Amino acid sequence: MIKTVLNDYSKKVGEVFNVYLPDINSNYKNLTDAMRYSFLLGGKRIRPALLMEFYKITGKTDENAINFAVALEMIHTYSLIHDDLPCMDDDDMRRGKPSNHKVFGEDIALLAGDGLLTHAFGVAADTKGIPAENVLNALKELSCLSGYKGMVGGQVIDLESEGKAVSGGIINELNLLKTAGLLRAAAKIGVILADGDDKQIKAADEYGINVGICFQIVDDILDFTSDTATLGKPTGSDLKNDKSTYLSLYGMDKCKEMVNELTEKALLCLDKFDGDTTFLRELTLYLAERKS
Amino acid sequence: MIKTVLNDYSKKVGEVFNVYLPDINSNYKNLTDAMRYSFLLGGKRIRPALLMEFYKITGKTDENAINFAVALEMIHTYSLIHDDLPCMDDDDMRRGKPSNHKVFGEDIALLAGDGLLTHAFGVAADTKGIPAENVLNALKELSCLSGYKGMVGGQVIDLESEGKAVSGGIINELNLLKTAGLLRAAAKIGVILADGDDKQIKAADEYGINVGICFQIVDDILDFTSDTATLGKPTGSDLKNDKSTYLSLYGMDKCKEMVNELTEKALLCLDKFDGDTTFLRELTLYLAERKS
Repeated sequence: MIKTVLNDYSKKVGEVFNVYLPDINSNYKNLTDAMRYSFLLGGKRIRPALLMEFYKITGKTDENAINFAVALEMIHTYSLIHDDLPCMDDDDMRRGKPSNHKVFGEDIALLAGDGLLTHAFGVAADTKGIPAENVLNALKELSCLSGYKGMVGGQVIDLESEGKAVSGGIINELNLLKTAGLLRAAAKIGVILADGDDKQIKAADEYGINVGICFQIVDDILDFTSDTATLGKPTGSDLKNDKSTYLSLYGMDKCKEMVNELTEKALLCLDKFDGDTTFLRELTLYLAERKS
Repeated sequence: MIKTVLNDYSKKVGEVFNVYLPDINSNYKNLTDAMRYSFLLGGKRIRPALLMEFYKITGKTDENAINFAVALEMIHTYSLIHDDLPCMDDDDMRRGKPSNHKVFGEDIALLAGDGLLTHAFGVAADTKGIPAENVLNALKELSCLSGYKGMVGGQVIDLESEGKAVSGGIINELNLLKTAGLLRAAAKIGVILADGDDKQIKAADEYGINVGICFQIVDDILDFTSDTATLGKPTGSDLKNDKSTYLSLYGMDKCKEMVNELTEKALLCLDKFDGDTTFLRELTLYLAERKS
């Protein structure tokens, strides 16, 4: 079921993206090709699925939140393009394919990231069928959790932690901002667009935090235990980069225990919603057990 | 008068910016320091002034458009940080000071740009006292004219034109997107926020196009005739980079003629507004005659 529903969301996200960034000729075709290349490489589209599902469990049956789902995935995609650049993590591969700058060059890759980030807010602002006030509140959340108080801030802490022994507190803040940032945004924005109350927004935020930290611990474990073919990107990079992670700090057993605890906490957050949370419960377990 | 009014706007923009990005301690202080460094270096704050003035000549007396003025300047600032990066124009100086990556390093400079761009949309979405529908329409315009169909697209055409003989048509498209992009956005957004009609939005757009192309021709001329101390950045870079410009295409006399024609056309656009256009008329002439 999980894969079918994720595929359905993925298809819908791709369709709407193609409307907002069609493959047309222009004198900047290299740019739109680069933007489309990374976005259409795929990925599991977890964030769009979360956003759409939180919108539904808050009582909506329509799909009017789709523009934000696409926008969020565009922001996720831009962050991967910029993270892979030589002046950042310098990664040559992403999702089993050459990373953006290996195909289009550093300058175009940088601008493709800028273009996706900029366009994302336009796509989100073009949301139909939802009160404008809610759309603005969702936009503020999107900006906040993907900006300096969220994902970008987390990336800076990550960069500055490399090669240093850092505390569990720093690791936690880093991942709360960086990895959990867009997952929190997905859940919260779904609820905000559906006109959920403050308790529900808070529950969505807590869900995002628990799933986000859990997601990162699983990533740390997979970086150590998986292989490049399964993961679609080089493994062992944390060790290579002398990077402090949950795994290096707490060890494998404790990390597996944390994954279970965080997953349980995330599931509890879903009790605050009246809608059908079956899919979200399955997705939460799937994320904890994933192999890539 | 021009300088006094520009200084007043500049002060207000700085004040609001400081509210949205205060100098506080955090584990990502390097990031916010880098964001603040480039924004607070100043510049003439032409775009905020244009936006606020178009809002006024469309009949408003309040200053509720200020958040968009700050957001637009944040986007202008991010674009300068990214343009200066080694993989782009590789410029060491900006506004008479070391460019962002010379002070903070390439990785932080890249993220400071990302942070400013992301935060800009949040600041704009937090606009008070203007109908939410108008704010959303203005946000769409901001995204469009600073994204792949605007500034970012223009930057790609610029990069790909370097070292080539390019036609006047390409030079014009490049500058319409790159230089005129944010000036068009400033004028149009002012009118949209003030609930202007379609004719006024069109007139604002035409004003922005004329002033934008004019601005670029003056830039081309100054790059050739000015010196580093006056301009605050190295001159002669177009010749050095073998770059086609209005000046290299049309020569000095024709360029000066074009500056006059475009300025006259821009002034005509202001006739579509009932409010007091005195300052905008002076600003238009000032931009054509500027020495830096």
